Amino acid sequence: MVSNTRLIKLSPFMDKKYGDLLPLEEMKEIPFPIRRVYCIYDVPSSMRRGYHSHIDLEQVLVCIQGQVTIMVKTPFEEENVVLGSRYTGLYVGPMVWREMYDFSKDSVLLVLASKPYDVDDYIRDYNAYKRLAYDYFSDYAK
Amino acid sequence: MVSNTRLIKLSPFMDKKYGDLLPLEEMKEIPFPIRRVYCIYDVPSSMRRGYHSHIDLEQVLVCIQGQVTIMVKTPFEEENVVLGSRYTGLYVGPMVWREMYDFSKDSVLLVLASKPYDVDDYIRDYNAYKRLAYDYFSDYAK
Repeated sequence: MVSNTRLIKLSPFMDKKYGDLLPLEEMKEIPFPIRRVYCIYDVPSSMRRGYHSHIDLEQVLVCIQGQVTIMVKTPFEEENVVLGSRYTGLYVGPMVWREMYDFSKDSVLLVLASKPYDVDDYIRDYNAYKRLAYDYFSDYAK
Repeated sequence: MVSNTRLIKLSPFMDKKYGDLLPLEEMKEIPFPIRRVYCIYDVPSSMRRGYHSHIDLEQVLVCIQGQVTIMVKTPFEEENVVLGSRYTGLYVGPMVWREMYDFSKDSVLLVLASKPYDVDDYIRDYNAYKRLAYDYFSDYAK
């Protein structure tokens, strides 16, 4: 996996009679305090979105309906992760560039984040990102 | 509305080009610290579930896909709330009995909770609930 990313195995309680329940508890399934949650949906399948990194924010992405592909990269690595199961979350830590694409028609992407929304935590310019991330991940490259 | 419940108006960012984003931030849209999140889905439409109250827990329920009806009651009031829109969350505070039914086939119910899972915070016996809730809400009845 790309540095500062990993897959998290989730364990829904499955019950054919009562229905299923997917628990996402902070410091348990989610390895940080949950401060913000958001859902992304009704994304046209041709749309690619994201195109940013966060300086400090940690997130877990869970595709709770349909399927979506997440591209995560640093200046040294790149990976495409297909999220299409409620059994798997994608942890994305600080300084990882992400782009999201191939949203299926019905997809709902649930994102749990470690901090309140902060516009100053975003890096949206890829060249600026590359300079900062090159230093941040330079130990990895050595 | 039933005591300790209220509807919360949510404001998704709507964008036909990029897709929609529904933010749920603690102490903002969600009037408590978010400690736990869970999703309920694949519930047979004939199933009625819930049948409990919490002693302290606060929750916000948002139906992010499909539709579901939530019955909330105290010993003094009862109400059925249809959740079928991402514009509306249902806040359910302490000591409110809840039952969930009429889940549509594709429904996904997102629940944000103020505390980690605690089995001792549940009241599952309705008679026990009634005794405790009668005292808890007695000011209301006066």
